Amino acid sequence: MQRITDIQEMQRTADRLRIEGKRIGFVPTMGFLHAGHLDLLRVCREQCDIVVLSVFVNPAQFGKGEDFGRYPRDPDRDEALAASAGCDIVFIPNSEDIYPPDASTRVEVEGLSELWEGRFRPTHFRGVTTVVSLLFHIVKPHCAVFGQKDIQQAVIIRRMVRDLHFDIEIIVAPTRRENDGLAMSSRNTYLAGSGRSDAAVLSRALRLAEQAIAGGERNTAMILAIMHDELAGSPDIKLDYAAVFDAETLEEIIVIDKAPVVIAIAARIGNTRLIDNTIVKGETIES
Amino acid sequence: MQRITDIQEMQRTADRLRIEGKRIGFVPTMGFLHAGHLDLLRVCREQCDIVVLSVFVNPAQFGKGEDFGRYPRDPDRDEALAASAGCDIVFIPNSEDIYPPDASTRVEVEGLSELWEGRFRPTHFRGVTTVVSLLFHIVKPHCAVFGQKDIQQAVIIRRMVRDLHFDIEIIVAPTRRENDGLAMSSRNTYLAGSGRSDAAVLSRALRLAEQAIAGGERNTAMILAIMHDELAGSPDIKLDYAAVFDAETLEEIIVIDKAPVVIAIAARIGNTRLIDNTIVKGETIES
Repeated sequence: MQRITDIQEMQRTADRLRIEGKRIGFVPTMGFLHAGHLDLLRVCREQCDIVVLSVFVNPAQFGKGEDFGRYPRDPDRDEALAASAGCDIVFIPNSEDIYPPDASTRVEVEGLSELWEGRFRPTHFRGVTTVVSLLFHIVKPHCAVFGQKDIQQAVIIRRMVRDLHFDIEIIVAPTRRENDGLAMSSRNTYLAGSGRSDAAVLSRALRLAEQAIAGGERNTAMILAIMHDELAGSPDIKLDYAAVFDAETLEEIIVIDKAPVVIAIAARIGNTRLIDNTIVKGETIES
Repeated sequence: MQRITDIQEMQRTADRLRIEGKRIGFVPTMGFLHAGHLDLLRVCREQCDIVVLSVFVNPAQFGKGEDFGRYPRDPDRDEALAASAGCDIVFIPNSEDIYPPDASTRVEVEGLSELWEGRFRPTHFRGVTTVVSLLFHIVKPHCAVFGQKDIQQAVIIRRMVRDLHFDIEIIVAPTRRENDGLAMSSRNTYLAGSGRSDAAVLSRALRLAEQAIAGGERNTAMILAIMHDELAGSPDIKLDYAAVFDAETLEEIIVIDKAPVVIAIAARIGNTRLIDNTIVKGETIES
């Protein structure tokens, strides 16, 4: 596995691979890899000849008072894990190279970036779309893989790619879960003791919502009531939102009459913010 | 010369040319070509194997009440002129393909876009940087040529390319002028009679400013006074601004103590808005 830190070297490498006719796949991450990231690498490997992983804790997507400083980092472990997952290139740029001191350009998907997570993290998605754009210009991939856990991010990236005519296929890979259902996240490392066991209630609430829909419930007020009931059993969980929304427009849904729809939860346990979601597909609605 | 209207066909063509090792040059325009555009094509030809011209009157860079509707258009003539200038590909996309109905992504260079022209056209540069970004993703050039007449646009594009790590060389080509000094512009077609002859005062004022600097004047208040005096001789000219600013930061300069600096004018004659500028280089300052 090749390790690249220099932006121009990454661009020249991508140019060379493209001239050789190689299909370049890209998995952008903030590092501290877990099994969910390795799934993304495997999905990428199935679609592409060359798999590039980037590790960059992007300051622009953290708000004031968020966890940029304490976000977990372990680049040596990341490299070893990436190599074991068959990654070809790990790109670990310096923050000063990515953002010159007077950097002033931003890429923003209006509307979609202001909903749901955007209400709690008003500058977050602008930071994401800006860094993903510039990483696309550096890595020059044919396809890029994002995790379903950050579903709003994936929807916004798809919209950005369409609007700005990036010639890149966006793949969204399923969420990897712990044995008790907790969606894997680098931030789970913040959880300890009862917080860790409480965290599983998010995925339990999502499963109950899915079961209600499979059982014929179409009224989202009823579905959300079931979720709130389940969450109420864990009083240390502070809910930011539970919602059912359209998988493309992110608009709230009152009666489920088409698919796919997203059921999403965001909550806090102490200082740790957790998100999770499930996508309800057509076969569930039609059954 | 090849004519392409389909976005995917342009992307596939660019991919093929890149695999063949060709260097792709790009001249984005709003059409209604004049000799200044043909200069850009020639500069592009000198640097590149393949020259791509785009013709797209971009609605997003016109403000409310501006001249989008009456902007001059003549695609057949543009194609003939481009072919005669040795252009290889003319890309003429449809507006509905460039901007889907719910397009909501924008690329913005903050700060620089709000100065000078930005005060009079507050959404203009956002429209420019968004369309140039997406055209870069479609044409996939190695280099792109912009005209010096739109100097603030060129400075903003350079900043965007640097900040978003576009792997594209930006070339700024000199302004082509009519015999009386008027900078060539598709909008000059709006000028008639005395308005047309009055318009030459912009370049005369710039020449007087250059002469003052060559003669040792470094105080920009004195230089601007000379320009205002010259402009006062044409009372039908309504000045928006005359200014001396840094060629990279666009910050106003009080005493010229380094180069390059830009001397710029923006003015209206009736409903027609004209801009012009000159770049004062190191050799003038040091002499």
